[in-house]
Amino acid sequence: MRCFWDERQRAHVPQGEFFNGKMHAAAEHRGRIDAMLDAIGATELPDDRGIEPLQRVHSADYLDFLRSAHEQWVTAGREGDAFPYSFPIVRRRPQAFDRIDASLGYYGFDTSSPIGPGTWEAAYWSAQTALAALHATLDEGGAFGLCRPPGHHSGSDYFGGYCYLNNAAIAAEAALASGRERVAILDVDYHHGNGTQDIFYSRSDVFFASIHADPATDYPFFWGRADETGEGDGAGANLNLPLVRGTRWPEYERALGTALDGLGNSAPDLLIVSFGADTWGGDPISHFQLETADYRSISTRIASAGLPTLVLMEGGYAVEALGANVAEFLSGF
Amino acid sequence: MRCFWDERQRAHVPQGEFFNGKMHAAAEHRGRIDAMLDAIGATELPDDRGIEPLQRVHSADYLDFLRSAHEQWVTAGREGDAFPYSFPIVRRRPQAFDRIDASLGYYGFDTSSPIGPGTWEAAYWSAQTALAALHATLDEGGAFGLCRPPGHHSGSDYFGGYCYLNNAAIAAEAALASGRERVAILDVDYHHGNGTQDIFYSRSDVFFASIHADPATDYPFFWGRADETGEGDGAGANLNLPLVRGTRWPEYERALGTALDGLGNSAPDLLIVSFGADTWGGDPISHFQLETADYRSISTRIASAGLPTLVLMEGGYAVEALGANVAEFLSGF
Repeated sequence: MRCFWDERQRAHVPQGEFFNGKMHAAAEHRGRIDAMLDAIGATELPDDRGIEPLQRVHSADYLDFLRSAHEQWVTAGREGDAFPYSFPIVRRRPQAFDRIDASLGYYGFDTSSPIGPGTWEAAYWSAQTALAALHATLDEGGAFGLCRPPGHHSGSDYFGGYCYLNNAAIAAEAALASGRERVAILDVDYHHGNGTQDIFYSRSDVFFASIHADPATDYPFFWGRADETGEGDGAGANLNLPLVRGTRWPEYERALGTALDGLGNSAPDLLIVSFGADTWGGDPISHFQLETADYRSISTRIASAGLPTLVLMEGGYAVEALGANVAEFLSGF
Repeated sequence: MRCFWDERQRAHVPQGEFFNGKMHAAAEHRGRIDAMLDAIGATELPDDRGIEPLQRVHSADYLDFLRSAHEQWVTAGREGDAFPYSFPIVRRRPQAFDRIDASLGYYGFDTSSPIGPGTWEAAYWSAQTALAALHATLDEGGAFGLCRPPGHHSGSDYFGGYCYLNNAAIAAEAALASGRERVAILDVDYHHGNGTQDIFYSRSDVFFASIHADPATDYPFFWGRADETGEGDGAGANLNLPLVRGTRWPEYERALGTALDGLGNSAPDLLIVSFGADTWGGDPISHFQLETADYRSISTRIASAGLPTLVLMEGGYAVEALGANVAEFLSGF
């Protein structure tokens, strides 16, 4: 399976994150990269397909914000990474702001996703990596994009959950633009892919299925319930399968079967997998109990659907096992 | 003018607040209280009118949350004050949560409003102080409630901006419940009273006028624009007068005249003033340029409306001048 990666994705170097009442070391750090690169072997560089594929998913004002946010932060006299602190939880609507703190809160939804001087560059190349792997998939039936930063928590105009650009959504839109008619996205990260869900929530041409920790107990908390099934044209095209903490392979496998049945019924001509290895038992911020060998079981089940399959990296924070878990997952294709 | 205050309002002792990327000393601290008490002289204790007046404004689930939040925080193994970190900026809807961090994010909208072990007690008595001052106003034409914590950023089911219960809204609802037909709320805090606006946004029986710093540059950022004029039955009953940083008395006086004209046209039988002294030139977190003498000018203009007038304390963080500014304001009635 061809693997894509660009060294510029290292430019995002979060200094910490604020949650549970205090600053913590960043879980989504560059050590993850080396763990994965060591395990997967040779990678290819992505071409630069420019901003246009990003604009199919993200609003122009959001992209402008993301590109300039840290510079605005520094200009305002702030130090270190940029964080929001006030959030439009009711009556959110597009507005012009003259202060970076306002923009950060408008476009962000948490305080665990710092924006530093290299965040835009890393997110941009993470998206290009997704696009390169997409085009390899369209040509050859499968590929892996080592996306980092990850993407599935980012919506059309917001960042959060360590995600700034939604790589899976960008790839899905690019596939549709290149002539595919129906795309399915399967999200097997520990956390619900709220950004991806939100982007396609009223769309019938992109089916979204997610297996994740119950949002009643786990981040991102406010999205991912089983009763969120899509709306308008997208009614029935969103399938959430929340699972309790402590979930092991037997229960996970059942949910995976349900997800694959659901997305199979949507008759997609491309499958995009948002893959997180944070379902592993030893993950420091997650609470499922999958084992390394289970990742090959997941991917062989996915491969048995017989669809062209693009795999994009999302989370996974147990650096000591991350390479093995990713390699095991990719080995099933 | 009779003044109400209860020592239990001291029970809220915030240890710090997170904004602009780091923890800061809490601006809304107990030193504010002594500054005000020294200046206004004798105060009266409020009666305990119970939870029912609070329930007219706040949802039952929110009150349950607020009462138990810090205990849940401690039970979850957290230390210090409770803070949220992830926020439902899209598709917010009532849900059951099994984790305090989820509830904190659902019911909060910023990271500058810590919840400590005494926050509920202080907020409860701050609301009772507002109610006691309301009843004195209904009986005698005017009174002052030294509310602390303040209230105007709190909505029916959210806290933020150092506010946990909306004292002005609670007083307005109690006035309506006791037979008044129309209430006007004039908010002259530096910051937009987004909670009060939100609570009454589709109501015609409570007119809300606010003079505040332009939300394009100042907290709470996402609400308070001039085009927010109410909706449904409340269309036309919301008047926002945002002013630029650096505003001095001449421009402030013009806005005050506009606000008084607006609320006068609503023919209220009671006026509630959300008073913040953070419009003073030396306020550490605000940027208007009012002088101490201007506070008497404001209140004499308000008094000239000839309405029964309840004054409730909101913000004001320059402790060295807070007492003088509050006393000057009250002297105009």
